Amino acid sequence: MAGTDKLRPRIEEGPAIVLVAPQLGENIGMVARAMANFGLADLRLVAPRDGWPSEKAESAAAGAIHVIEGAQVFDTLEAALADLNFTYATTARERDGHKPVRGPVEAGRTLRQRFSGGEKVGIIFGRERTGLHNDEIALADELVTFPVNPSHASLNLAQAVLLMAYEWMSSGLSDATAPAFAGPAIEPAPKQELYGLFEQIEEALSARGYFRSAGKRAKATENLRAVLTRPGFTTLEISVLRGLVASLDRFQRNDGSSRLESPPRRTARTEPGHD
Amino acid sequence: MAGTDKLRPRIEEGPAIVLVAPQLGENIGMVARAMANFGLADLRLVAPRDGWPSEKAESAAAGAIHVIEGAQVFDTLEAALADLNFTYATTARERDGHKPVRGPVEAGRTLRQRFSGGEKVGIIFGRERTGLHNDEIALADELVTFPVNPSHASLNLAQAVLLMAYEWMSSGLSDATAPAFAGPAIEPAPKQELYGLFEQIEEALSARGYFRSAGKRAKATENLRAVLTRPGFTTLEISVLRGLVASLDRFQRNDGSSRLESPPRRTARTEPGHD
Repeated sequence: MAGTDKLRPRIEEGPAIVLVAPQLGENIGMVARAMANFGLADLRLVAPRDGWPSEKAESAAAGAIHVIEGAQVFDTLEAALADLNFTYATTARERDGHKPVRGPVEAGRTLRQRFSGGEKVGIIFGRERTGLHNDEIALADELVTFPVNPSHASLNLAQAVLLMAYEWMSSGLSDATAPAFAGPAIEPAPKQELYGLFEQIEEALSARGYFRSAGKRAKATENLRAVLTRPGFTTLEISVLRGLVASLDRFQRNDGSSRLESPPRRTARTEPGHD
Repeated sequence: MAGTDKLRPRIEEGPAIVLVAPQLGENIGMVARAMANFGLADLRLVAPRDGWPSEKAESAAAGAIHVIEGAQVFDTLEAALADLNFTYATTARERDGHKPVRGPVEAGRTLRQRFSGGEKVGIIFGRERTGLHNDEIALADELVTFPVNPSHASLNLAQAVLLMAYEWMSSGLSDATAPAFAGPAIEPAPKQELYGLFEQIEEALSARGYFRSAGKRAKATENLRAVLTRPGFTTLEISVLRGLVASLDRFQRNDGSSRLESPPRRTARTEPGHD
């Protein structure tokens, strides 16, 4: 998806992402990209299967080459965690043991709180196929798991990282539901503009003898006004609609002769006021 | 990551995932896997670049082969959306236009509410490199964007799908942040009814030589569609609007002579596509 702005400064802080024995360079590259998407940069690799550096990782990282170049490689998970104060281990399985299990939202908030308090924090991710071993899980402070479909619980490694990076970013927003940019303010136009549209449409219809009786006119205009009032059209939207009506109305009025023409696609069903 | 339980039943409901002109089979496969992870199964492909079926998609789908096999292929986005009541378009950049922009959490809750209310809903994703074009954005009811790092805003296609699928799943969990599952009072008409109105209006305008050039036509129809899409008109409302247009259109077409008449209250300002 497009939209990157190279000019804006990078955000580079937050939890370390620790990958235990990652198998595929492509996945490491996708992890780096996911980290960059949500402002993370501290990537730690424990005994990557195919060695390091990895061309496949670099090509899969898209713009996130700085994360790849900054990655640190460790022989053991203990070494990778040595300087961290608090870590989560990600798991898709229930584990026996005494560690609390959190959801991603709560985990994101906890990481944010501890990080803001000056702690160094991290999230541990296991091998693509087999995840984390129990002796690796034992090194984490708490577990985090995802609300996945039980019959397809196996998240791709980069996607698991993405979800945690996303919740990390979200935990830092004043309102997690706020979009990154504001949409147009949908401010309804002053009513007089709406009434101007009513007038224009009803005058055009009336000139065509559309309202066959006072009674039908009342009901038909009531329907039209209800339809055009409900959306709360903006000034710009109303001007677009007025342009539409003006254009359809820009021709000679009914002198009887044109009634001989068969109306295009006209059915009683599409008549206002007859429903 | 491990942990899948093949014995448990699949969850298969929720929004359709609509991919516009996806380029890489691998990405389509990863999308299918992400959908399965969070219980989605309705995958719709609009003009996939490398054709369909795709072996690369199947191999990248991991366990989600049922999503790949159930995927529907369409020539146009309109056809892909025809039976849906409400759609989001995903975008990473700000768009000028008439549509509200939501964050993923709010979008997930809105989709859940409308789905629970009996509506058919969908989420539209653009091309890997260039995203969605404006005329495609114009077909969506609202926009959704992600709280990404501004300097690396480009999400991989499957990861964008994953985030929305994750928020869809999260919106269904019973916790304090879960929405009230009340359906909206106003159910938008299926998109095909809206497209029928577009067709009728655009044909009537075109017959009047309203679109002075292909360029103006594109912009003017984009504006009209945006205005008429935003309210989420109901079936009844659309029939009233079709009655209005049919009535204005029920007269002889421009033969040049009528151009001599001065148009009522027409100004450049009220022309769509000129704002």
